[in-house]
Amino acid sequence: MTKLWGGRFSGGVDALMERFNASFPFDRRLYREDIEGSLAYARAIERAGVLTAAESAAIQDGLRQVLAEFEAGAFVEQPGDEDIHTAVERRLRELIGPVAGKLHTGRSRNDQVATDLRLYLRRELRLRRAELRGLQEAALALAERHLDVVLPGYTHVQRAQPVRFSHWVLSWFWAWHRDLERLDDCLARADVLPLGSGALAGTPLAVDRVALASDLGFAAVSENSMDAVRDRDCVAEALSWAALLSVHLSQMAEDLIMWSSAEFGFVRVADAYSTGSSLMPQKRNPDSLELIRGKTGRVIGHLTGLLVTLKGLPSTYNKDLQEDKEPLFDVLDTLALTVPVATGVLETLQVRPERMAAALDDGMLATDLADYLVAKGLPFRQAHEVVGQAVRLAEDRGVALSGLALEEWRGLSDLVDSDVSAVFSHKRSADRRRARGGTGAEAVGEQLRRARAILEVSGTAVEGGQDAG
Amino acid sequence: MTKLWGGRFSGGVDALMERFNASFPFDRRLYREDIEGSLAYARAIERAGVLTAAESAAIQDGLRQVLAEFEAGAFVEQPGDEDIHTAVERRLRELIGPVAGKLHTGRSRNDQVATDLRLYLRRELRLRRAELRGLQEAALALAERHLDVVLPGYTHVQRAQPVRFSHWVLSWFWAWHRDLERLDDCLARADVLPLGSGALAGTPLAVDRVALASDLGFAAVSENSMDAVRDRDCVAEALSWAALLSVHLSQMAEDLIMWSSAEFGFVRVADAYSTGSSLMPQKRNPDSLELIRGKTGRVIGHLTGLLVTLKGLPSTYNKDLQEDKEPLFDVLDTLALTVPVATGVLETLQVRPERMAAALDDGMLATDLADYLVAKGLPFRQAHEVVGQAVRLAEDRGVALSGLALEEWRGLSDLVDSDVSAVFSHKRSADRRRARGGTGAEAVGEQLRRARAILEVSGTAVEGGQDAG
Amino acid sequence: MTKLWGGRFSGGVDALMERFNASFPFDRRLYREDIEGSLAYARAIERAGVLTAAESAAIQDGLRQVLAEFEAGAFVEQPGDEDIHTAVERRLRELIGPVAGKLHTGRSRNDQVATDLRLYLRRELRLRRAELRGLQEAALALAERHLDVVLPGYTHVQRAQPVRFSHWVLSWFWAWHRDLERLDDCLARADVLPLGSGALAGTPLAVDRVALASDLGFAAVSENSMDAVRDRDCVAEALSWAALLSVHLSQMAEDLIMWSSAEFGFVRVADAYSTGSSLMPQKRNPDSLELIRGKTGRVIGHLTGLLVTLKGLPSTYNKDLQEDKEPLFDVLDTLALTVPVATGVLETLQVRPERMAAALDDGMLATDLADYLVAKGLPFRQAHEVVGQAVRLAEDRGVALSGLALEEWRGLSDLVDSDVSAVFSHKRSADRRRARGGTGAEAVGEQLRRARAILEVSGTAVEGGQDAG
Amino acid sequence: MTKLWGGRFSGGVDALMERFNASFPFDRRLYREDIEGSLAYARAIERAGVLTAAESAAIQDGLRQVLAEFEAGAFVEQPGDEDIHTAVERRLRELIGPVAGKLHTGRSRNDQVATDLRLYLRRELRLRRAELRGLQEAALALAERHLDVVLPGYTHVQRAQPVRFSHWVLSWFWAWHRDLERLDDCLARADVLPLGSGALAGTPLAVDRVALASDLGFAAVSENSMDAVRDRDCVAEALSWAALLSVHLSQMAEDLIMWSSAEFGFVRVADAYSTGSSLMPQKRNPDSLELIRGKTGRVIGHLTGLLVTLKGLPSTYNKDLQEDKEPLFDVLDTLALTVPVATGVLETLQVRPERMAAALDDGMLATDLADYLVAKGLPFRQAHEVVGQAVRLAEDRGVALSGLALEEWRGLSDLVDSDVSAVFSHKRSADRRRARGGTGAEAVGEQLRRARAILEVSGTAVEGGQDAG
Repeated sequence: MTKLWGGRFSGGVDALMERFNASFPFDRRLYREDIEGSLAYARAIERAGVLTAAESAAIQDGLRQVLAEFEAGAFVEQPGDEDIHTAVERRLRELIGPVAGKLHTGRSRNDQVATDLRLYLRRELRLRRAELRGLQEAALALAERHLDVVLPGYTHVQRAQPVRFSHWVLSWFWAWHRDLERLDDCLARADVLPLGSGALAGTPLAVDRVALASDLGFAAVSENSMDAVRDRDCVAEALSWAALLSVHLSQMAEDLIMWSSAEFGFVRVADAYSTGSSLMPQKRNPDSLELIRGKTGRVIGHLTGLLVTLKGLPSTYNKDLQEDKEPLFDVLDTLALTVPVATGVLETLQVRPERMAAALDDGMLATDLADYLVAKGLPFRQAHEVVGQAVRLAEDRGVALSGLALEEWRGLSDLVDSDVSAVFSHKRSADRRRARGGTGAEAVGEQLRRARAILEVSGTAVEGGQDAG
Repeated sequence: MTKLWGGRFSGGVDALMERFNASFPFDRRLYREDIEGSLAYARAIERAGVLTAAESAAIQDGLRQVLAEFEAGAFVEQPGDEDIHTAVERRLRELIGPVAGKLHTGRSRNDQVATDLRLYLRRELRLRRAELRGLQEAALALAERHLDVVLPGYTHVQRAQPVRFSHWVLSWFWAWHRDLERLDDCLARADVLPLGSGALAGTPLAVDRVALASDLGFAAVSENSMDAVRDRDCVAEALSWAALLSVHLSQMAEDLIMWSSAEFGFVRVADAYSTGSSLMPQKRNPDSLELIRGKTGRVIGHLTGLLVTLKGLPSTYNKDLQEDKEPLFDVLDTLALTVPVATGVLETLQVRPERMAAALDDGMLATDLADYLVAKGLPFRQAHEVVGQAVRLAEDRGVALSGLALEEWRGLSDLVDSDVSAVFSHKRSADRRRARGGTGAEAVGEQLRRARAILEVSGTAVEGGQDAG
Repeated sequence: MTKLWGGRFSGGVDALMERFNASFPFDRRLYREDIEGSLAYARAIERAGVLTAAESAAIQDGLRQVLAEFEAGAFVEQPGDEDIHTAVERRLRELIGPVAGKLHTGRSRNDQVATDLRLYLRRELRLRRAELRGLQEAALALAERHLDVVLPGYTHVQRAQPVRFSHWVLSWFWAWHRDLERLDDCLARADVLPLGSGALAGTPLAVDRVALASDLGFAAVSENSMDAVRDRDCVAEALSWAALLSVHLSQMAEDLIMWSSAEFGFVRVADAYSTGSSLMPQKRNPDSLELIRGKTGRVIGHLTGLLVTLKGLPSTYNKDLQEDKEPLFDVLDTLALTVPVATGVLETLQVRPERMAAALDDGMLATDLADYLVAKGLPFRQAHEVVGQAVRLAEDRGVALSGLALEEWRGLSDLVDSDVSAVFSHKRSADRRRARGGTGAEAVGEQLRRARAILEVSGTAVEGGQDAG
Repeated sequence: MTKLWGGRFSGGVDALMERFNASFPFDRRLYREDIEGSLAYARAIERAGVLTAAESAAIQDGLRQVLAEFEAGAFVEQPGDEDIHTAVERRLRELIGPVAGKLHTGRSRNDQVATDLRLYLRRELRLRRAELRGLQEAALALAERHLDVVLPGYTHVQRAQPVRFSHWVLSWFWAWHRDLERLDDCLARADVLPLGSGALAGTPLAVDRVALASDLGFAAVSENSMDAVRDRDCVAEALSWAALLSVHLSQMAEDLIMWSSAEFGFVRVADAYSTGSSLMPQKRNPDSLELIRGKTGRVIGHLTGLLVTLKGLPSTYNKDLQEDKEPLFDVLDTLALTVPVATGVLETLQVRPERMAAALDDGMLATDLADYLVAKGLPFRQAHEVVGQAVRLAEDRGVALSGLALEEWRGLSDLVDSDVSAVFSHKRSADRRRARGGTGAEAVGEQLRRARAILEVSGTAVEGGQDAG
């Protein structure tokens, strides 16, 4: 088979090396972007006087035919197709003859693949963005459905203070909102055209790169050709974004897995997102959530791997950079599953308020009891000490805190009076936290309104709302 | 020793556990932020009616005294000082008595440490920002000093095409510019106040959190208390930023290390940034650059480590989160060395144009020869093939490309004429790349102007130019 | 200040570079190994005729004095002490004069530091080994104390089948046994002397390296000097070992943290390994376990970081290698806390059999019910299906499996008879698993005996039992 | 479609979840191991009296037929085939009817997949072992072909001392030898049978697990069922092994890439392992080596990813563990390319002794000059200083060290005499390093013999030499 670059070579390529070197098995998925980029490039070098109108038309027609073959699944790979660029050019030549050989004038695979990658990244990240917004929407709906359900809030997996279930759900909304912001930053920074950088030194053709960028929908052009063919920042940034989003998903999954246990029993994952056991007939496992949690490893691993590959590379293009694609593809594919599955889990989640209520114990009101003493004039630190002793006393006596007699309380502090009994309400405890961001009814109501407003804004933020473009 | 939380405990803490649990050895560096946060908190709960004016004044005076002790190196650690918060409160109590116990009303170490961390991160990242701009400035100055020096541009560490040395230097400017943008995004997103979130459920006090944020210079308040005490996104984002910046530094270091070799000899690292050998008297090693490259591992490792720690954590605060500080501190400290040292290396770098010129060979003009044939009407792909054969022919004959006789060229393509000799100029080759972003004289000049302008803008972008605040 | 390598340099070193380059702040902890290595080296080059007996004695006496200064905390650092080797040689020269300058004959810091590192690693890993065996011992004792306590075994955090608590404890014993084996492999492979490799090319002195190795207690000598000064495999292997051990600890911690929750309540971590809350007086948090889990990030991060640093390094010694020490030290220090703290947690753990028993429900016997049907001739797959339907029926009817009437069972399969009631015993269910490795009484008893025997053997495996040497 | 575990479920599974959950797309490659394990399991439960001889025969015949279908590429996937175990059992049932349902008696997919994984790992690691030995063999042959070629040895990419090319090649042999040892340790530790552990609690069947292990060629059985279904140590250990091996390959690649540059020119990678440029006709790039170096990121990334996935998992089996396979498969596949390609590169490498010789300069003899002074009685440290000054003097004067006049030398030290000229031989310099492990002729000869002997031994170490079994 013929290589694009074969002229100066005498020996053939080792068969294993051929396989080792080939990227077509995984970069063929860039066919749309590769051809889109070539179409725009043909127009650009026509404007630059490199192609005649007729040559340009022939090349563009041919490229559209190649695209159609890919779309129809009719593209036939040939032995020499080492990558998507080679494959497309080879087929173009078969279709339109030697004039195909003019398309690569002034262009290198170095700036071509960088362009393909950005086009692909942009398209996929916009899809991920829409899915992420879908997840946020599911969270808002879930919070609204269970606005005033109270359950134990935990720190250190120990019951801490009563919180609203809606408050818990919304806590993820905000984490995902930061993820969305980071995604938008990444998209904006990736919106730069490398094409026209040649192999490393720039192009000698009179190509108007700004016009070319505009043709391909890029907001800006790269300012330095050596940087342009080496730069994989947008991939690293996308993987960093994905890693943190995955961490958030893993944390939510952890909560829900624990809460799905018989011991907690706060929620029940729908059958649609559960599986059973081949051996134990009673099992109903929240596999969806475990996979979401488990796949965090994969995503963090790919981020690490890319950074390792980039570390210490000499200028400018080195073949090592071919290793940027598979981690990126796998991460984008992974998120295309984890986020929608998480969305489905939330949409179908069965919440069990009675189990949540049953888990609210008196100890969770200890801070309120301390606040009660503070209101009576005791500095907080002493109030904390007094209630701590009461907790121990109740524990020693085997009763709940509300089971302590008034005299027992008074033995610890004479500030306690019969009005202490009013403290023992978990609903009231939650509603006392009414400052912004708190779990009180009003605060959560306000929080929900803010979240809705933000979600609406983010829906129109990218390209007039076509965020799944 | 007494614990802040000792009331409900009977048994003592194991001595090794005490050491294991303690964070004071490393979080004591947060003393300024911890006290700054407490001062503002005292004012906030005074406004909320929790403290009288006198109590607030006493507490604030006491806190300022504690700060003075830290600043003077006079703060004496006590056995019970498990973290900076405990240490400060303990000392405050010694100084002003039980009223100190009112400061923690409605506050938890969970929202306190999250606040300290953001104050610290903001201060340090602004310093790193100024240092990064200093590096960019050094790059611009270096590019200006050697504007028209031409050297081989490499791909795959093989000579590719002639480029300007200034173009190579500027290629890093743009990478660092993206780093600066990412830093600004990170700073903006970290500019949110968690204080007032309590342990996890919010505060029952009538604290005006927006006013509190304003007092501490934060742009916004956290919208969900459970998220606020768990969220370490700003740390992860800062480490991701640092990892990519470090990768860029490692790549530049790799180039310069290779170019410092006797074989390349393109540059000479100043004595001030070199070291010798204990055994070999002739050695002069670019240790500064090797350490910059090597420390990339440390930074990527810390990013990985933090993500591992965060993965799968249950809501909300878990002690695992204490592991956020050391990696952050070490990364900030590392960059506070690598970036200024890289700056010094560039400022003092000896460039050797004669060695660069000596490395320019005819093969690097092969693309220009192909372009020559294209200009005569041959499609690029065929032109590439013809020149490839010429390269092989010259290699077989043991001559340079310019050493091929006209007949030999004509044996390959009759389009070649005597005007081919004009192609053999590396300077002209570089200057042909005049499209934006290319290595031609005009393009590089324009690039330098854009870079200067951008650097000026970034200097005024953060808080009216006080970017080292 | 004077450098060891200053002769060929004219310019001074930049102050920041000085700090950047210096490793003394962290490698000073190698003082014992550095001096131990130098003592042996002095004897070796004396035997090689490079030092006279008197010179050797003077050098050795001086070195012992330097050691004494370090041990007494009396060593005074000087500005030029860039690393431990320099510091020791500088002090030696002060003490004994110019003859000190003979010690470095034929030696380079490259082979010296590699030797120090191995001596240090060997000493520390043996200590970690003893601590790990202590943890195994604690596990065995805990298993023995609660041999026949039955609790739910979980898969997917869903109740699966009854298991012995001792079986759960022993499951960690075996994981740690593999850790111990890996540690021994690492120790054996690290037991190789690099000294005598010079800077990279070997030594021209007639040093008997095998004798030198023997003097320092090494089992073998390195076979290639270029490999010897580059090789950091033993560090990478130690970090890999530490990472997997930490993963095991994190998993056990996860179980115990969950089981410490009010909802599970299976165990109670002793006060000695718990902490409280600064805000919530009732809290009792298993911080010890959370830190153990959280520090897994740190260890994995350091492993990643070292591999990044090593990746793509050119032969032989590069300054990047200086970055090997801090991750190693931090990991060794971390394990010196996590393993003993985990040991303490197990030694003092309060097991609550009544809570465990209360969590055993009928669903966990579903596999036994299927086995019951299998015993009556039904293929397992159908038996599984029948019991699955019974589970659903019981769930729909709101009763336990044992609450299904015989007719209801017969509606699903006529193989069920009144003897089915005998299946409903969790203890019997556990004891049925009597094949090797199972949770039945005999199998666990046998398992314990094997574990004890293995632990005894491992106690005598390293250097005649002096494994904490 | 029917699930193995469908009895207790009412709702269907979400279509996306189905895809998310399915592992058949990647675990189908375990078909041989899955069937091999099932064949042995059928025999084992026949011996335990669970199957009649006829049932066992039917099942085994059926399984062999399924295997034949897979081998012939004739196996037809059905919608319900969620994993390889389900697919095989489904097909078996189609072939032999309900008796197929007896095969899963007492077995769970948890112990089944753990068994498959170990069988697969063992088979693949043995193949990798043979390939690694092939690489070592290639290194030995290359060293033998160029035994006495001398080139500059480098530290810090600065010329340091003359070394033999064969010595450089052998330096990798020893690194790979450690890799081989680690691989053997990993193989030995993975040689343990988990089957018979059931879902987590062990098997109630009277299965002789030792006999079953023997049937499958395992050396031992797992000692604890809960550990057995959770344990993925052998995967983590294999990935750690692969990471370090990849680091070694990346380092060798780095050397060869740099040496392939026009500036070094020490070697030339064969056409069979090089590629060209689509734009620059003269290019000949060592892509093979760059990919070897670049893929190190992928391998380290997978190691990190697996550790992340395992971190903090609760006992025993969790679906997260399904994420163990893809990283393992990808790493094994990657090494199956990188190691043989590296072998091919070495086998066909063109060594250019004349370029190496040309790079030997006088500075590299500075240590020998210091040794010369030491031999005349000067302590090494002073000798180092004197030669350092000589280097500076020569540099200032623009001459080589050998170009200094005797008077100039004497100006630095009166120990120098006319016999100093004898020092100026790179060959002699190398040969002076004759202690074991050095680059002297005898030492390298001895080293080669040891390496040969070790390689021979390792060839017979695993299963009587059938290491590619």
